[in-house]
Amino acid sequence: MGETFTSSDASRSARPLKHAQRAVFREPLELELGGTLPEVEVVYETYGALNAAGDNAVLICHALSGDSHVARHEAGDDPGWWDIAVGAGKAIDTEKYFVICSNALGGCRGTTGPNSANPATGRPYGADFPPVTTGDLVETQRRLVDHLGIRALRAVVGGSMGGHQALAWATRHPERVRKTVALATSPRLTTQALAFDVIGRNAILRDPNFRGGQYYGGPAPGVGLALARMLGHITYLSPQAMKEKFEADRLTPRDVPTEFEKRFSVGSYLAYQGDKFVERFDANSYVTLSLAMDLFDLGATPAELAETLRRATCEWLVVSFSSDWLFPPEQSREIVSALLDLGKPVSYCNVQSSCGHDAFLLADELDAYGALISAFLGRNGAQGEAPPNDDVYAGDAASIFHSRRLDYDRIVDLIPPEASVLDLGCGQGGLLARLKARGNGRLVGVELDQDAVIAAARRGLDVVQADLNSGLIPFGDQQFDYVILSHTLQAVKDVERLMADMLRVGKRCVLSFPNFAYHKLRRMLAVDGRAPESPGILRFKWYNSPNIRFFTIADFEEFCREREVRVHQRIFLDLEEGKEVARDPNLLADMAIFVVSR
Amino acid sequence: MGETFTSSDASRSARPLKHAQRAVFREPLELELGGTLPEVEVVYETYGALNAAGDNAVLICHALSGDSHVARHEAGDDPGWWDIAVGAGKAIDTEKYFVICSNALGGCRGTTGPNSANPATGRPYGADFPPVTTGDLVETQRRLVDHLGIRALRAVVGGSMGGHQALAWATRHPERVRKTVALATSPRLTTQALAFDVIGRNAILRDPNFRGGQYYGGPAPGVGLALARMLGHITYLSPQAMKEKFEADRLTPRDVPTEFEKRFSVGSYLAYQGDKFVERFDANSYVTLSLAMDLFDLGATPAELAETLRRATCEWLVVSFSSDWLFPPEQSREIVSALLDLGKPVSYCNVQSSCGHDAFLLADELDAYGALISAFLGRNGAQGEAPPNDDVYAGDAASIFHSRRLDYDRIVDLIPPEASVLDLGCGQGGLLARLKARGNGRLVGVELDQDAVIAAARRGLDVVQADLNSGLIPFGDQQFDYVILSHTLQAVKDVERLMADMLRVGKRCVLSFPNFAYHKLRRMLAVDGRAPESPGILRFKWYNSPNIRFFTIADFEEFCREREVRVHQRIFLDLEEGKEVARDPNLLADMAIFVVSR
Repeated sequence: MGETFTSSDASRSARPLKHAQRAVFREPLELELGGTLPEVEVVYETYGALNAAGDNAVLICHALSGDSHVARHEAGDDPGWWDIAVGAGKAIDTEKYFVICSNALGGCRGTTGPNSANPATGRPYGADFPPVTTGDLVETQRRLVDHLGIRALRAVVGGSMGGHQALAWATRHPERVRKTVALATSPRLTTQALAFDVIGRNAILRDPNFRGGQYYGGPAPGVGLALARMLGHITYLSPQAMKEKFEADRLTPRDVPTEFEKRFSVGSYLAYQGDKFVERFDANSYVTLSLAMDLFDLGATPAELAETLRRATCEWLVVSFSSDWLFPPEQSREIVSALLDLGKPVSYCNVQSSCGHDAFLLADELDAYGALISAFLGRNGAQGEAPPNDDVYAGDAASIFHSRRLDYDRIVDLIPPEASVLDLGCGQGGLLARLKARGNGRLVGVELDQDAVIAAARRGLDVVQADLNSGLIPFGDQQFDYVILSHTLQAVKDVERLMADMLRVGKRCVLSFPNFAYHKLRRMLAVDGRAPESPGILRFKWYNSPNIRFFTIADFEEFCREREVRVHQRIFLDLEEGKEVARDPNLLADMAIFVVSR
Repeated sequence: MGETFTSSDASRSARPLKHAQRAVFREPLELELGGTLPEVEVVYETYGALNAAGDNAVLICHALSGDSHVARHEAGDDPGWWDIAVGAGKAIDTEKYFVICSNALGGCRGTTGPNSANPATGRPYGADFPPVTTGDLVETQRRLVDHLGIRALRAVVGGSMGGHQALAWATRHPERVRKTVALATSPRLTTQALAFDVIGRNAILRDPNFRGGQYYGGPAPGVGLALARMLGHITYLSPQAMKEKFEADRLTPRDVPTEFEKRFSVGSYLAYQGDKFVERFDANSYVTLSLAMDLFDLGATPAELAETLRRATCEWLVVSFSSDWLFPPEQSREIVSALLDLGKPVSYCNVQSSCGHDAFLLADELDAYGALISAFLGRNGAQGEAPPNDDVYAGDAASIFHSRRLDYDRIVDLIPPEASVLDLGCGQGGLLARLKARGNGRLVGVELDQDAVIAAARRGLDVVQADLNSGLIPFGDQQFDYVILSHTLQAVKDVERLMADMLRVGKRCVLSFPNFAYHKLRRMLAVDGRAPESPGILRFKWYNSPNIRFFTIADFEEFCREREVRVHQRIFLDLEEGKEVARDPNLLADMAIFVVSR
């Protein structure tokens, strides 16, 4: 039975942390909401070694119910809550990085918290433990980082509440954070998530055993804490994941020893998780840390969020998970939008997953988020290293046309060195990689396909996953010297919106598109009476083409004229012949490249 | 403060039900899960009058926390939980219908439940009240309906748990139900919804005041019941509705008198709702009725669901709400799919709403669901009444072409009288209304646009809201004599899937589409070098057209040939000239009509 119910963050009882180290800071910690802790003890674990330059330290921040034991230290060790991602050769490679993970302030696994002895009384703080904020958690970690002699962290990494801490690090100590990895997190909780936390705390605080938090030595408020944990578990799973786990045997509960209802399969799971949690976690810590999470707030509006994020100077990797409804992807996109608008270097991927919020802890999507983290941590400098030049077409769907090189070549020629470039529909980043190899300014790609996003990230490029057919591009006005839309306009639903957006964001826009009035295509319709199609140009059938807009060079010229779009340059190509077209392009060119601006 | 927090089902304290009537049934009620109630008392209210034929009775079934007081009986009366929908001239018109609403078995507002006196002891049943099922609730209502001398109900109407009762009525007493209105409901709860209920019951049952359910006379398990209610309230609201209510003043709670946490605005709301609920509802009833809901199960698989629904002989109206995540629209579509596959008469609309599950109780979307209910209750016979003949083009977007009449006329001519017809993309039902006026067999429309669905429903047509561009059409093989796709194929993304589906469902399929090789269009591309466009045929610009597939009569012929689709008839029209085309249609026709089959 245990197997089914083992989830990554609840599989361990509160065994002693064998590899835990301790640091005691005797200066009083002034808390953000008032109150002072006379001293703070921090329990932490480290993996790998700090290098001579002292610049390979990665701080991992745990979520609500986690602790310092993020991964195993040796074979046979307790695996830890993120062993799949942290270790030799793993996404966060302990052979490269000096990994630090500390138990959070207010927690119950060694770092000062409600179950610690209050130096003033010698007894546990209990209800006297003051409310702490994410900022206080980070301040405690800062002391630890100082203590370890680390000036700047290569990265701060965290998911969920750990993501809050990573965001706080990046905005409070910009000079000490080179990279931030924010997984399944948010600028602040949704009202819905906040409401679940409130109910969890109500269950604990109104448990008769809570006794104002002074329950140590007596029975713990186990019913309340278990109820809070059950509620948490619903929010950690997607509805689909719950269905997959418990639909087939809905009325066949596991025989768990519990006083909670176990009529239904899902009920026995919740009872098991609730009871287990009570064995390893302290109700006061749950109240303390959930409140810290509820109070975290980088800004309620896009403007406030931007104001907070403006301070950050690090590179960013933001990852959300499609079925996460506790920290929904839209909240990650709020962070990404603000960073893009500010011109900060950021990569973003909404990883497809059915696992819900828990996805960031699970192996299911590790191939995706692990690859993104590994590539992001590994690259040096805002744009990483240039790939070998012969690699630039690799993997791009477009490369099946040998003739696309001409198209690419001409676009690359149009972009001045040092120009900043946004490539919309960048695929695996072939064009951007060519520009990078040449030494361009800021380069950013936008791409919908997850595999392409990951491939581009592996090239050391900043890529933001987004659908050009939905929503606005969250870039600032005139933020890029060039915006490129290569061979994509014909697949765009809302052409007018996208064009307006490109012209807003780019000082110059470069568009390439197939010319529907190319003589061979005209002939197909006029003479043969058939929908024009052509390998390499419109290489699909009428009924399965991704292309949904059919237009000609003349149509595009008129479109620009009517909207007072300035056309700076026109390049006409016959890709079939592999040459430029000089005269009568609307008849003789199968591909056009326009450089335009507002 | 009260204003903000008043929600439709929690606004009343447990005042006496002034207009309640009582019926006592002295035969023992054998319960489905075993156990017997020696007698059953039912509290109910009625509105309007039973007509001479006795065929205008509408039974309304309440949800978990409702009661018999569905609407006010006179000015100044307590409004009731669905006063917006029930009354003179309202969606459920008490001037036309004899409306009955009874308190559910197991409830706490007068009908036999855990707080009723156990005849065996003279004291409240408490924990001795046996578990009841939705079937038991319906059996109790059946006794009441008998008692009122009603042979067949014109309709059973219910939302949420009330929808479960309506579904149970339709499948258990098919001979006594003419119409079923199932709002915001499901064949059985999602695992997620079930899990929330389990936690709610755990909170109640583990409240020290619960004392095995024998708490009458002492303090009630108010903390547990309040926690369950708080949890319920989160699930009744959409995340968006919660955001709209509580984001702006997140940290400014209302000053409600409560012992629960009120640090956050949403917390004070939950505390208020929880406390209020304890004043008016009995914890044992909550446990009893939520368990009845959790055990309701029309079938875990599509096959099992179909087996249950097969028994029903009524007409169906199924309505879901787009932001309802407790009874998600997908579950309503499971019911609709099963009914369609079985060939049962059903209309379905997924009403756009940001209100979540509560939407079916609120005024926000009453214009939509009220109109659907009113039209559905009002029509007579499976296809309602024929509208006046001059009305058939009214409101259809297509009617802006005067020439569309020719198109329609020819399609109507192709359909034999008595044939059953499925019209895909039926708009406001103009074509179906013409067929109905002529006296066809079963007529069903599929349409995406909500307003069009409502307009078609007002015409007395069965219309199912669905997107032809997503998912399969849930109709059985060869279920219709004719499937029509009029003037829509050019806007379909997955042409091959839709065509395959049409050919599966229809013995014959009629498709009309614009011919892209019409001579004027050819000339535009060939001579002018411009994307073809034409008022009345391709009346949009290349960049904003809903049309995304451009093909010719020759292309379509080839498509059919390659897939061994049999072409039975071809009609070619020149709509501009208002005439049929006899020779060289791929050049001279701007519109084609094909009759095809597998």
